[in-house]
Amino acid sequence: MLSKEMTRLGNKRSVIREIFEYGLKRKAEIGQENVFDFSLGNPSVPAPWCVNEEAKKLLDLKVIHGYTSAPGAIHVRQSITAYIKKTFGADIPAANIYMTTGAAAALCICFRALTVSGDEFIAFAPYFPEYQVFVEASGGKFVVVPPEEKNLQINFEAFEKALTPCTKAVIVNSPNNPSGVVITEENIIRLCALLKKKSAEYGHRIFLISDEPYRELVYGDVFVPYLPNYYDNTLVCYSFSKSLSLPGERIGYIAVSDKIENSSDVFAAVSGAGRALGYVCAPSLFQHVIANCLGQTGDLSIYKRNRDLLYEGLTKLGFDCVKPDGAFYLFMKSPEESAEAFCEKAKKYDLLLVPGADFGCPNFVRIAYCVDTDLIERSMPSFAKLIAEYK
Amino acid sequence: MLSKEMTRLGNKRSVIREIFEYGLKRKAEIGQENVFDFSLGNPSVPAPWCVNEEAKKLLDLKVIHGYTSAPGAIHVRQSITAYIKKTFGADIPAANIYMTTGAAAALCICFRALTVSGDEFIAFAPYFPEYQVFVEASGGKFVVVPPEEKNLQINFEAFEKALTPCTKAVIVNSPNNPSGVVITEENIIRLCALLKKKSAEYGHRIFLISDEPYRELVYGDVFVPYLPNYYDNTLVCYSFSKSLSLPGERIGYIAVSDKIENSSDVFAAVSGAGRALGYVCAPSLFQHVIANCLGQTGDLSIYKRNRDLLYEGLTKLGFDCVKPDGAFYLFMKSPEESAEAFCEKAKKYDLLLVPGADFGCPNFVRIAYCVDTDLIERSMPSFAKLIAEYK
Repeated sequence: MLSKEMTRLGNKRSVIREIFEYGLKRKAEIGQENVFDFSLGNPSVPAPWCVNEEAKKLLDLKVIHGYTSAPGAIHVRQSITAYIKKTFGADIPAANIYMTTGAAAALCICFRALTVSGDEFIAFAPYFPEYQVFVEASGGKFVVVPPEEKNLQINFEAFEKALTPCTKAVIVNSPNNPSGVVITEENIIRLCALLKKKSAEYGHRIFLISDEPYRELVYGDVFVPYLPNYYDNTLVCYSFSKSLSLPGERIGYIAVSDKIENSSDVFAAVSGAGRALGYVCAPSLFQHVIANCLGQTGDLSIYKRNRDLLYEGLTKLGFDCVKPDGAFYLFMKSPEESAEAFCEKAKKYDLLLVPGADFGCPNFVRIAYCVDTDLIERSMPSFAKLIAEYK
Repeated sequence: MLSKEMTRLGNKRSVIREIFEYGLKRKAEIGQENVFDFSLGNPSVPAPWCVNEEAKKLLDLKVIHGYTSAPGAIHVRQSITAYIKKTFGADIPAANIYMTTGAAAALCICFRALTVSGDEFIAFAPYFPEYQVFVEASGGKFVVVPPEEKNLQINFEAFEKALTPCTKAVIVNSPNNPSGVVITEENIIRLCALLKKKSAEYGHRIFLISDEPYRELVYGDVFVPYLPNYYDNTLVCYSFSKSLSLPGERIGYIAVSDKIENSSDVFAAVSGAGRALGYVCAPSLFQHVIANCLGQTGDLSIYKRNRDLLYEGLTKLGFDCVKPDGAFYLFMKSPEESAEAFCEKAKKYDLLLVPGADFGCPNFVRIAYCVDTDLIERSMPSFAKLIAEYK
């Protein structure tokens, strides 16, 4: 009598959420400070000063809460166009910018806009688990490509095998959730060349969907290629959740590359999908806020310090970690085959880690380091006890 | 190569939007004050004082922009439960409240949660045009019941004919967009009795979906029945857009009646649909804002004054109007068979009205009176000239 698929989705608790709930319970038992909760990807750095300042300024204007046009307020879209031009040198006209209720909405809208029955969408493991939910809800088939295990970069042999005439799009998420890995420019160039070749071979374009909520969160001298500069048929799904530390406000955008042939048709399909999914407009106050905060971020040096402490600490202890160049996650190899069993053992020391199966890498665990720096320092003795079990 | 349906939806401009754009052009030509633009349902009354005041207070707390849990912050849901109990006497536990990104999201989520292939959803004309888009995007079939023409109440003969074993749900929108009509309690009782009878006859429950963004916008001594008090299998889709004049902020909720058999399954399906459509959580700042503004409204006396002026003015001129008891729309019979032709004639006098075809009543026009009172007064000579053409 109800949609079985929706009931299943609603009843299936996410592993991350389960660990988080366990953490809440455990904190109540032994004290907040004694639980090393690395489960959630909620920014720990406060929103930069401009966010609340702009919000307050805007609240004094009376008209700020009205509907904007469906793709967003035109001056907001123009600001984003100018920012993209200045920052990446790419020309994406305001007419190709569609403001969204966060990156999840952006992805759902893109999948729905593109999907024709039988279409396949490729993601590279490790991947954000909701990709599968979103692709399947749009009627597409979700295809996973395993990574190069040593560095979690693209495994091109596996990728080429996964491409078929049914491939509608490839999803790139760099910096990556859950690994923090940034795909190298060399690999992006290789990826794009392969997609061009296969598009020609299949006689239809393969789209590239760049999911990049972590774009600004990179540490050190790391280059994150802007995909519309490398491949014409690109849609960028951006969110301000992480850069401006406002994930609950749900604000992001889709940038449809102007180099896509008939990009106005793609934009129409995006608009239609936004409408069909009930996204009337992106939240208006925060549309205006972000327009005045473009290029700003929270204090990223905190994440960098956390990354360094955690990576160096765990590596010194003997854990096998892939060094994250961005985001606020570290992906670590489980010292035993079952990452679930390893995470259960970690719980004994009140270390809350997320097993990698849902990310498509069952022998890894995710450690979210968007936490107090102090917590990382205090967690090291527990990690030491944990690895001692394997020696 | 793209979804045809989404491209079509994106390219099909809404009639309302077209008239509005025409209005912008015309205002640039002859001056803002000389165009009588009755096309858009954007609240003209400012948000009540509490909205911006609460927002500013909350912005001074640092943690306000984080993710809330998917169904919403628990204290917000608890506040809504308490408000519903106090105001309508209904028991809807916080566990059955799902915060949404406005009423459009609420409707899309409900349709997606309920729809099984072959399901039919019934709406009473005149109806909000996006119902059809949302139902069809969820895989359902949209069925329209024509109204009693004299008062735009439910035509029970037509309604009974429209009910079939495939009927999954019936949508009630009272106060109504586009007519402002409030369904009488007598008719609600009759509607619910019929649904109970038919549910028994078909051997499965028929849901009632109450879309009520205009609940508080009623003028005079008008009673708006709270449907969970009349019918067990009810889902309420509410929005704060109109009562608090913040349509752009996208904040509302779904209340799943606790009297639905296995209501937790229905809630699970709602949660699953929210997830599948990319609604991670409703915008967090405004979740908290509305929790502190429940029961407040903008200055509704302005809408009442507009309603009175417009209804009395037009009726005196000889137009055939259905008196609106609520919302901020007046539905008027076209004096000629084609409401489109009538609206074109109205344009000559710079009166911008919306023809009723998209609302399921092709011989009516919608007049949105969420405008400056002064504009209504100044428009009367133009309406007089317009009706003179028909005398």
